[in-house]
Amino acid sequence: MRAVDIIVKKRNGQELLNSEIRFIIDGLVKGEVPDYQVSALLMAIYFNGMTKKEVSILTQAMKESGDSIDLSGLGGMKIDKHSTGGVGDKVSLVIAPLVASCGVKVPMMAGRGLGHTGGTLDKCESIPGYNINLTPGQFMEVLAKGGYAIMGQSSTIAPADRFMYALRDVTGTVESIPLITASILSKKCAEGADGFVFDVKTGSGAFMKDSENAESLALLLAETGKELGKRVCCVITDMDEPLGYTVGNLLEVAEVIDCLKGQGPADVMEVTFCLASHMLLLAGVAKNLKQAEDLCKNRLSGGDAWNKFVENVSLQGGNTAFLQDRVKWPVSPYRVPVKSLSSGFVQKMDAYKIGIAACLLGAGRAQKDDSIDPCAGIVIKKKTGDAIVKGDDLVLLHANEKEKIKTAEPLIHEAFIIGEKKPGRKKSRIIQKIGEGC
Amino acid sequence: MRAVDIIVKKRNGQELLNSEIRFIIDGLVKGEVPDYQVSALLMAIYFNGMTKKEVSILTQAMKESGDSIDLSGLGGMKIDKHSTGGVGDKVSLVIAPLVASCGVKVPMMAGRGLGHTGGTLDKCESIPGYNINLTPGQFMEVLAKGGYAIMGQSSTIAPADRFMYALRDVTGTVESIPLITASILSKKCAEGADGFVFDVKTGSGAFMKDSENAESLALLLAETGKELGKRVCCVITDMDEPLGYTVGNLLEVAEVIDCLKGQGPADVMEVTFCLASHMLLLAGVAKNLKQAEDLCKNRLSGGDAWNKFVENVSLQGGNTAFLQDRVKWPVSPYRVPVKSLSSGFVQKMDAYKIGIAACLLGAGRAQKDDSIDPCAGIVIKKKTGDAIVKGDDLVLLHANEKEKIKTAEPLIHEAFIIGEKKPGRKKSRIIQKIGEGC
Repeated sequence: MRAVDIIVKKRNGQELLNSEIRFIIDGLVKGEVPDYQVSALLMAIYFNGMTKKEVSILTQAMKESGDSIDLSGLGGMKIDKHSTGGVGDKVSLVIAPLVASCGVKVPMMAGRGLGHTGGTLDKCESIPGYNINLTPGQFMEVLAKGGYAIMGQSSTIAPADRFMYALRDVTGTVESIPLITASILSKKCAEGADGFVFDVKTGSGAFMKDSENAESLALLLAETGKELGKRVCCVITDMDEPLGYTVGNLLEVAEVIDCLKGQGPADVMEVTFCLASHMLLLAGVAKNLKQAEDLCKNRLSGGDAWNKFVENVSLQGGNTAFLQDRVKWPVSPYRVPVKSLSSGFVQKMDAYKIGIAACLLGAGRAQKDDSIDPCAGIVIKKKTGDAIVKGDDLVLLHANEKEKIKTAEPLIHEAFIIGEKKPGRKKSRIIQKIGEGC
Repeated sequence: MRAVDIIVKKRNGQELLNSEIRFIIDGLVKGEVPDYQVSALLMAIYFNGMTKKEVSILTQAMKESGDSIDLSGLGGMKIDKHSTGGVGDKVSLVIAPLVASCGVKVPMMAGRGLGHTGGTLDKCESIPGYNINLTPGQFMEVLAKGGYAIMGQSSTIAPADRFMYALRDVTGTVESIPLITASILSKKCAEGADGFVFDVKTGSGAFMKDSENAESLALLLAETGKELGKRVCCVITDMDEPLGYTVGNLLEVAEVIDCLKGQGPADVMEVTFCLASHMLLLAGVAKNLKQAEDLCKNRLSGGDAWNKFVENVSLQGGNTAFLQDRVKWPVSPYRVPVKSLSSGFVQKMDAYKIGIAACLLGAGRAQKDDSIDPCAGIVIKKKTGDAIVKGDDLVLLHANEKEKIKTAEPLIHEAFIIGEKKPGRKKSRIIQKIGEGC
């Protein structure tokens, strides 16, 4: 078998065989198929797509390129939640203790922020002492004891995805729905959960800017996941404006605590309850969505979710006293408001620009190895639909250098569209549901 | 500037700027843009094509990646001929002395055979002593004295093309008309001739199987060549069956001698006279095609072309006594006829299969560094339209091992389509002409 013949076949729009896809994936991992052939194939896939069958095979081959974690010893259904990435998206940190408090184990393999988006691991690490570098054994232990556990992806999980993603990133082949699907699912399937709820984000602050592509991705995730024996539900949610009122790691942890204490912003809670209910449905601990949502609300108001959170922070080495006394938290030396230049109503916000601004303030990374300032970020004072008077604060910028504030400020003005007309009623963040139980 | 942004731009169907194309080409040659990014870009070009402007810039950039030869010191128009590759195509060895005998200098930078096609350099080297490794100084001297000179492409000519072709070959991006155009013209333009006649082959034995693609290539070659200040004429010729009656290096040299002595096969001479006339027209030594063709026929029948050939062989170190006495030529130890299994008429032949068969007999290469058996090849006994009786010889296979004969034989049976009906009158090999003077 020759890689060039496989490339030509895909280039000509034909369906690749199992043996051909595995030849490429095995060859990539072993270094026997060179990068320049893989990147040409990736571009041919970008243009000609893949059939569902090809995506299943690709996902399976990528999954099998590394280790799989066996969680069957724990008993019960294990359900994970994964978001395609957004701005101010702190739902994972709320949903994990919430779902765990309902009796479903949540083995959460999370990622770091990249580009304009935040990452769950970075938020966790802004809690002093919190350790996301667990061994598989520690992970199982925390999961068994506390009901959920959070760790970074091990390098032995789906190495083919790591190699392939590094190539896609520099060859203009990131935006391919079959490749995104295989990338997400190959890792998730290796991580041992029985089912997944995917939060497929769409809008200015998402990687999938338009809802048509988001729908295609959700469909393919659901179908491929099922093909690989997993229970999958996809919820397409709106990421045109940030979720909640904070963007930045420690600022978001504060909002997570609000959520877990029953004082979370409406949009964060809407997405959280929706995704959590579907996790309960997939796990079989609720008969229908109504029952699932009632259970979640009950656990939240009863303090069980908050208790799970504190327990997990303790189990993963974090400082629980820190959680209790927010007055003692470190704050950025520079906290500068950005004031509105006009009066009226916020017509819309550009979550992408706000994400980039947070990144410039020190809350995110431009490159993989950049360090992060846990205190940096943005507190949002006005959101879409809010009335505003010239001179009102739009946001409060937090940074450790004046220069960073200056760089971020213009982006905030660009991000807020202010007009005279009062916009219509706020829409739900939930756009569409696809997959099991929908 | 980042290579990935250039890839994405082309992927999205936008026109690349001069600076972007040069960034890639310079980076490729200097090793600053890695192969995997270039191959992704090549695949994006395969799918989205290039505008005429992009092709001009690409060609120029590739040309300027290496040395250019200056032939201006020689005076008069220098015209080269280039074929896109065929089976039994010995026209270069006939046309160079013929056109030189008409007073036009022919600086011929030729190639080797690859795949199913033969190459001029291999045919030259089957003449004992013939040296194609000339220095630029020697090349100029032979050209000045003998009217034409033949050499291989120097490694300092268009190195970007060498790197890029090596990548295209293994990434399924050979069959791209903009890339083929830039590859051919970047080398040709660096080689110092004032004009070119391109023999764009189409049909089973050509790289361009269908005539629509051949026409697109011819058009783009003519337009880009003009853009780069060269006089260009393209003749699309039929390569559905081999040219002449021989395939294989020394066997073809014998047929070249027949041609130069006025006893060449009709098809070889038709193509030779057509291309040669256009070379004379481009050089301005004839006012019209009729006058050009008359001059060619006159020089051929007068023995001038043959004399030029002998002179060139002598100037390039070849054994001229060898040319005069064909009885003493080496022959393959195995010369085995392949006999027809049925009676009727040859309906058509598959030049590709005959080319592959010749290759298997030892006349060509599967890999770049394979050695060649100068005596090996095929003598064709029947061509399209010929009547045939079961048991008649279709071809005579020449090889130095019995095993090679056995491997090649089935391909010959596959290549000949024999039916009862007598085919219509043989069509001209000349399909279409595009460019200057057409």
